[in-house]
Amino acid sequence: MTDEQMLQAPRGTRDFMPQEKIKRDWIVGTIKREFEKFGFNPLETPALENFDVLSNKFAGGEEILKETYRLKDQGNRELGLRYDLTVPLCRIIASNNALAMPFKRYQIASAWRDGPLKTGRYREFTQCDADIVGVESLRADAECVALTQSVFDALGLKVKMRVNNRKFLDGLLAKAGVPESKRATVMLSIDKLEKIGRDGVERELKEKGVTVEILEVIKDAKPSREIGELFSYCEELGVRKDFVVFDASLARGLNYYTGTVFEGYLAGGKIKSSVCGGGRYDDLIAKFSGREQKIPAVGISFGVDVIAEVAAEREKTVVQAFLIPIKTTARAIAIAQELRAQGVNCAVDLMERSISKNLDYASKQGIPFAIIVGEQELKAGKIKLRDLQSGEEKLVSVSEAAEIIG
Amino acid sequence: MTDEQMLQAPRGTRDFMPQEKIKRDWIVGTIKREFEKFGFNPLETPALENFDVLSNKFAGGEEILKETYRLKDQGNRELGLRYDLTVPLCRIIASNNALAMPFKRYQIASAWRDGPLKTGRYREFTQCDADIVGVESLRADAECVALTQSVFDALGLKVKMRVNNRKFLDGLLAKAGVPESKRATVMLSIDKLEKIGRDGVERELKEKGVTVEILEVIKDAKPSREIGELFSYCEELGVRKDFVVFDASLARGLNYYTGTVFEGYLAGGKIKSSVCGGGRYDDLIAKFSGREQKIPAVGISFGVDVIAEVAAEREKTVVQAFLIPIKTTARAIAIAQELRAQGVNCAVDLMERSISKNLDYASKQGIPFAIIVGEQELKAGKIKLRDLQSGEEKLVSVSEAAEIIG
Repeated sequence: MTDEQMLQAPRGTRDFMPQEKIKRDWIVGTIKREFEKFGFNPLETPALENFDVLSNKFAGGEEILKETYRLKDQGNRELGLRYDLTVPLCRIIASNNALAMPFKRYQIASAWRDGPLKTGRYREFTQCDADIVGVESLRADAECVALTQSVFDALGLKVKMRVNNRKFLDGLLAKAGVPESKRATVMLSIDKLEKIGRDGVERELKEKGVTVEILEVIKDAKPSREIGELFSYCEELGVRKDFVVFDASLARGLNYYTGTVFEGYLAGGKIKSSVCGGGRYDDLIAKFSGREQKIPAVGISFGVDVIAEVAAEREKTVVQAFLIPIKTTARAIAIAQELRAQGVNCAVDLMERSISKNLDYASKQGIPFAIIVGEQELKAGKIKLRDLQSGEEKLVSVSEAAEIIG
Repeated sequence: MTDEQMLQAPRGTRDFMPQEKIKRDWIVGTIKREFEKFGFNPLETPALENFDVLSNKFAGGEEILKETYRLKDQGNRELGLRYDLTVPLCRIIASNNALAMPFKRYQIASAWRDGPLKTGRYREFTQCDADIVGVESLRADAECVALTQSVFDALGLKVKMRVNNRKFLDGLLAKAGVPESKRATVMLSIDKLEKIGRDGVERELKEKGVTVEILEVIKDAKPSREIGELFSYCEELGVRKDFVVFDASLARGLNYYTGTVFEGYLAGGKIKSSVCGGGRYDDLIAKFSGREQKIPAVGISFGVDVIAEVAAEREKTVVQAFLIPIKTTARAIAIAQELRAQGVNCAVDLMERSISKNLDYASKQGIPFAIIVGEQELKAGKIKLRDLQSGEEKLVSVSEAAEIIG
């Protein structure tokens, strides 16, 4: 490894410098606020899990397990870095018998997958998951749809959702003559309709030995009673008619879904990749924990990385004002403390640089205001506030400055 | 591994259920706000680092490296989980030549150490670090002290700081006749004065072959000019006189400190463990990156886990109101959406349980208000708002409810 490689973040992972991190923090903060409005409580689980948990046969499945980072601790315990936030949730439910239902939790955290690197795919990535555990009613599914609408409205992104139902899709395939043993794999091919096109899907189906005209069947499919019910519940929640559409070809990659599946994608965007997705998984928790009793669950997961790629830029720095003392450092520092007490984020030159160097530094950092602290002005109880965008300068008191900046 | 063990978080790591996570989020949010007021910008680096970075001989040192979780990716690259946030910062500075100075960054994130488990020590833990890179002036050190005061004031915790200077301590030891080769290890022993007492330290020193009356020398030591300067800068920043005291026995565990060292501890608390600590490390970044040019730096690190142990309890749930429909589910859901639009965090019963079961659920969750939505009241444009603490009930409009709850 060369020195230069050594100094990079590991392959497939990234550093987020302030400007990018400010944007990510804003996205995460916005999603968190919407999750909480809908009554989800926060949960934190460790990044490390016992490998037995991650390899539970009802969890992520073979493919994901191949991409799981494995390690051992000094006590020779087999561990792994979590590949999603659903498995930790299942573990929490399984290990807390006394948990009152419904249990609505959200978790915003990193997950890791040591998979092939494609555009927009990373080995360390951030997920925001909200799940409702313990509610059988499709009103919980509808709540996930309404939550998604609120999240993207708050993020200022035009997103639409596609929705389908696994039981319904399974029924369609059965009616079309696809044997039960092949239906799961057929669903995965159908799911790629948007990505690889009709020809691509037909080729895959042929390879899998499925000759029936699945795509015709799907194209002509009318929503089931259950899907109709979901749509009426979405209406109760004020979900806009054009926000969510029925799409019989939507299947979602994971095996554990049992009912509703949904996916959000950018409306009118060039990027076809999904910005969120989820569905109902009524059997997973019971199977995972070896319990008899069914524990219904439905949830939605937002990908911070793909959202950050399309969200509008935010400010370059959190700093709102940069104080430049002219032989007045002690006074400038006291003024900075006054401004902070009034809620202004600020920094003071501690390197005794010239005014022009300091103005240059502040401008390049993207700081909106400079405050020049001169003895002359101080005598009059004033400081010089300079708008670094317009160049406009004003003599103001500290509290006037705080008001203008804030 | 038994089923029950399998379902636990790995040894040395923890799950944080909602009540605990709400408190941690509040602590982190409070610290983040103070960091930003002092003009620090956020940074995010991956949890995984190339092992060569973590094992850099100027970084954490042998002891920490023994406790580092190691793993390989599928390309056989040697990786590790970061054991602190300072090493990633050094890597960022070293790999970004064009970074404007000063660079004030903060990072709030997990770190991992596979070490022995003692009270309050975990293998996965959360650190909040703020560092000023590029400033030689002791005013930067003083800023870290002022920042610490602001953080603990905002957290409502009575904390005091001890401060010392490595160069000064080194000079004291030299004057007392401790040879240079032994000074680093002697400092580590002296640092334990609070923890293992005077007898313990003297025993350790004897074992290390140091016979001079170090502790007498230290007890009588008067602050150096540099420490005096730091105190005067603290005064400029409005740091309270009793917030920070000189302590010639403070050394801090890490080798890389070159000047000021400081540590915060609970004032009057039974727990002597530190709640934050840091210092100046002027040589680390240059040595780490193999550069000629010295890059001065000073920083402070707050431990979320120990702070969470002593911080006051917060609310049990983020949910502010629980809506209980009486054959009015669709209307109750619409009202919940209205409340959310007015910023109220709420949830609706979707399990069609009885009023008493719902009230019981809401109370046990710690939700402050229940809203009973009955047809009769709806006709008058009202809902029944019940204060679950006092039991008091009121008929109010939705916006009146939002005002009372918010």
